[in-house]
Amino acid sequence: MGRVTVRRPVLRLSADGVHRRQDALAAEEPLELRVDGKALAVTMRTPGHDVELAHGFLLTEGVIGAAADVRTARYCDSVDSEGRNTYNVLDVALAPGVEPPDTGVERNFYTTSSCGVCGKAALDAVKLKTRFSPAGDDCRVSPETLATFPDLLRTRQRVFESTGGLHAAGIFTAAGELLVVREDVGRHNAVDKVTGWALLDGRIPLGGSVLMVSGRASFELVQKAAMAGIPVLAAVSAPSSLAAELADEQGITLIGFLRGTSMNVYTHSARITGS
Amino acid sequence: MGRVTVRRPVLRLSADGVHRRQDALAAEEPLELRVDGKALAVTMRTPGHDVELAHGFLLTEGVIGAAADVRTARYCDSVDSEGRNTYNVLDVALAPGVEPPDTGVERNFYTTSSCGVCGKAALDAVKLKTRFSPAGDDCRVSPETLATFPDLLRTRQRVFESTGGLHAAGIFTAAGELLVVREDVGRHNAVDKVTGWALLDGRIPLGGSVLMVSGRASFELVQKAAMAGIPVLAAVSAPSSLAAELADEQGITLIGFLRGTSMNVYTHSARITGS
Repeated sequence: MGRVTVRRPVLRLSADGVHRRQDALAAEEPLELRVDGKALAVTMRTPGHDVELAHGFLLTEGVIGAAADVRTARYCDSVDSEGRNTYNVLDVALAPGVEPPDTGVERNFYTTSSCGVCGKAALDAVKLKTRFSPAGDDCRVSPETLATFPDLLRTRQRVFESTGGLHAAGIFTAAGELLVVREDVGRHNAVDKVTGWALLDGRIPLGGSVLMVSGRASFELVQKAAMAGIPVLAAVSAPSSLAAELADEQGITLIGFLRGTSMNVYTHSARITGS
Repeated sequence: MGRVTVRRPVLRLSADGVHRRQDALAAEEPLELRVDGKALAVTMRTPGHDVELAHGFLLTEGVIGAAADVRTARYCDSVDSEGRNTYNVLDVALAPGVEPPDTGVERNFYTTSSCGVCGKAALDAVKLKTRFSPAGDDCRVSPETLATFPDLLRTRQRVFESTGGLHAAGIFTAAGELLVVREDVGRHNAVDKVTGWALLDGRIPLGGSVLMVSGRASFELVQKAAMAGIPVLAAVSAPSSLAAELADEQGITLIGFLRGTSMNVYTHSARITGS
C-alpha cells in the first residue's frame, strides 16, 4: 500500500534516437468505500491519505459535516491471492444518529428534483444538501495573492514532478498561506483528500479560504467546494458551463485560467480586491 | 439540447487591466443512461452524440458488442419545469437474448474476483469481459505517422479552440487516416463517443487502429480500448501505473507524452516500426 509511484521500463523515441530507460508512473489502484459495511462507491485513486479521501467524499455526499460524525474508519478484509491486505477497502462506521447515504445510481440528481435530469436538477440537489453555504462569506483576496498560488501548488506537487501524471488540489487562506496539498490520478479524489483533511482538522466550514486545482473546474469540483463551505475556487484551466452556474448560485467566486498574473473571474467577483 | 458551448460574462484581469467580456464555456449537463427502463449510470457530459456515448458505454461494460445488440436508443420522459424534454435521459432497449448489465457498485471489480479489491482484480475483471482481444493484432505504425496525430486531433477540436475546456478522443488507422473525433468535458465520455460511433458504423473490433486522447491515459481508458479491440492507445500526457499494467496484459501498445516527434512507449513496442 501507499506506493504513489511505480517504476516501469519504457522505450523513449525522440530526435536523439531510441533509448530504453526506467520511468516513474503515478500509482493507480481501486478503493472501495463502505459505510457501515455496505459498499457505497469504487474510485480509482492514488494510494495514500485514504481516510481523508473517505471523509471528503462523505462530506460532499452530505452524509457527514464534522469529524465527530464518524466513529471509525479502517481498512478491512480485502486480501490478495497471497493473503495480504490490499488496503483497498475502507469501511467507515458512522456515529449514532448519522443517517447513512443513499446508494442508488440516481442519488445525486433524483431525490430532490421534480424536473427530471437536467442541469437545474443537479443545482437543486446541491442546494438541498449544502450545510455550509459560502454565500455570506465576506473574505477578500487580491489578484497578487492569487497569482502566487499556481507556483506554490506546483512546488508542493512532488509526485507530479516525477511522473507528470497527477492532479493536485490545495487549500489556501485568503491571505495566501498554503494549508494543505494533495495529489491523485483523479482530480475529484485530490479535492476529497484536502476537504477530508480539513474536516479531520476541525476546519469545516472552510470560511475565508481558496480551493486551488491544477486542471479544469467541473460541476463536481464546485459541488465539493460548496459542501465544504469554501468561498473561492481557482483553477489553472477552464471551467464548464455548469460549474459556473453552480458557483453563481452557491455564492462561490469561480476563477479560471489562473496563469501568471492573469485570470478570468466568472462569478461573485466582489471578493477579488480591485475588481 | 445539443449546445456544446454556453456564453457567460467574465471579468478578465491581466497586465492590461480589468475588462468585462463574453466568454464561451464548454457545456456540461447530466445524462442518465437507462437500460430497458432501469437506471444504470449518470454521467456529466457535453450534450451531443449521446446515442454514440450510450453505445460506447455499454460496449465498455461488456453488455453489447455490435449494433444489432441494441433494439432502440431514445430520449425519454425527462422534462424541465416548463414541460420541455431535457434530452438528458436516454433509454436503451436491448435486443432479445442480450443480457442486461449488473447495476451494483461493485460490478466492475467483484463479480469475477476472488482476491478482494486490488489492481489485479481490476485487470482480471477486464480479462473476463473482453470479447475482442487486441493481443493478436499485428498492425504496425511508424513514429512519423504517430507524430502527426496530436496536430490532426487538435485541428478537429472545434470546441476546445473556443473554450479550452474539453477533452478529445480520435480514432486513426495505422496508416494515419483520422476516422472520427469527439469532444467532451469528461475524457471517458469522449472515448465512449468514438467507440460508440465505431460500433454503430460496424467497425468493432477496431483492428489496425489507434485511439488517441488529448490528456492522460488512465486504467479506464485502456479498458475502453481493450473492449473495443483497439491495439494502440496514444496519449498526449502521462499514463498511470494501472493503465500500463492493463495495456501490458491485454496486448495493447501504450504510448504516452506523444509530443512533436518524441514519445514514450510503455508496452508492446513491436507495433512501432523501427523500435
